[in-house]
Amino acid sequence: MRKIELVLALDVLEREKALDIANDVKDYISHIKVNYPLVLSCGVGIIGELSKIKPVIADFKIADIPYTSEIIARIAFENGAKAVIVHGFAGRETVKAVLNVAKEFDGEVYVVTELTSSEEFFKGISDKIAKMAVELGCHGIIAPSTRPERVKALKEIVGDIKILCPGIGAQGGSLEVVKYATHIIVGRAIYNSKNPKKSAEEIYKKLSQLD
Amino acid sequence: MRKIELVLALDVLEREKALDIANDVKDYISHIKVNYPLVLSCGVGIIGELSKIKPVIADFKIADIPYTSEIIARIAFENGAKAVIVHGFAGRETVKAVLNVAKEFDGEVYVVTELTSSEEFFKGISDKIAKMAVELGCHGIIAPSTRPERVKALKEIVGDIKILCPGIGAQGGSLEVVKYATHIIVGRAIYNSKNPKKSAEEIYKKLSQLD
Repeated sequence: MRKIELVLALDVLEREKALDIANDVKDYISHIKVNYPLVLSCGVGIIGELSKIKPVIADFKIADIPYTSEIIARIAFENGAKAVIVHGFAGRETVKAVLNVAKEFDGEVYVVTELTSSEEFFKGISDKIAKMAVELGCHGIIAPSTRPERVKALKEIVGDIKILCPGIGAQGGSLEVVKYATHIIVGRAIYNSKNPKKSAEEIYKKLSQLD
Repeated sequence: MRKIELVLALDVLEREKALDIANDVKDYISHIKVNYPLVLSCGVGIIGELSKIKPVIADFKIADIPYTSEIIARIAFENGAKAVIVHGFAGRETVKAVLNVAKEFDGEVYVVTELTSSEEFFKGISDKIAKMAVELGCHGIIAPSTRPERVKALKEIVGDIKILCPGIGAQGGSLEVVKYATHIIVGRAIYNSKNPKKSAEEIYKKLSQLD
């Protein structure tokens, strides 16, 4: 049976709270996804601390010129990240620059194909981004659970690389995407829960049953 | 005579060096643009420190869902940024979320229309992004000096809002864009110079003469 992994999007702002929640739910998650709100609030060192609990994905949605993107990716990996997220929209040269750094650290690169919140400027482009991600040898894509039909189409393009789907829970995404996803990313439904461990366990079990 | 301002892109990694260079060149620049390499390396507090020298533009190229983008913008403004940079391709809702935070702080929002490094996925879209920036009441756009003809076209769309052009210097952009730009962003040609003050002065004078 295909295993769907649960990724915790840990978008809290306090170090102690982040570490507490991560420790609390670690049995049910495969990775911790860290974004700028947490890193800006308590310093990039939090990546290393969380990495002791579970592998960290630095969700920096890197979208800069290659020169700057490479530096940002390097800082993430040097601080212990196992993977970084880059915006495919930024173009092939940016993704290559990030991939080159990842190789040095034996790290992975996941490419955003489109955002859960908007397809306004992604229409007709996200398929091209997905193709590029495969061609360049990226390790996965980020695809929106808010548009399951898009995840299905993207799966047909990318084949067997990882497909990480955020947007289930607070953003109203559909669990239908478990048919195509390898990882489901959940944030607020866990970290804003009165009982994060119980919520993570419930989602974990639901994923196992649906699978 | 129309005045073209010089913005220092301060992409060094050390706090002392950043403060030294900023102090050194402050007579020739209107703003300091700070990106993630510096903020991740020495903490978000550097924005407040640099703000005492010149107004800071937080070049976080925000490109996330509205919920996360709002938090990132808030952290930038709370730490003293005068403006933030958001990626237009992230969509209207993201730009609106950032604008709402900016209003609370009397701050400004500049929208990336396309990157200097790549037009791969921006073709046919950057004009729409520029239109959106004006419609939503953004304060400026970022446009690539590496493609002066694009800056010209974007200027026709956005009219009198600010046009900030990076890419002159290390990226090989054209000074032709001073015809359309309000701000020229220069990084490496100043901060990697043996004499940043002299280099900034030279660029400042060149901009005045060309103007």
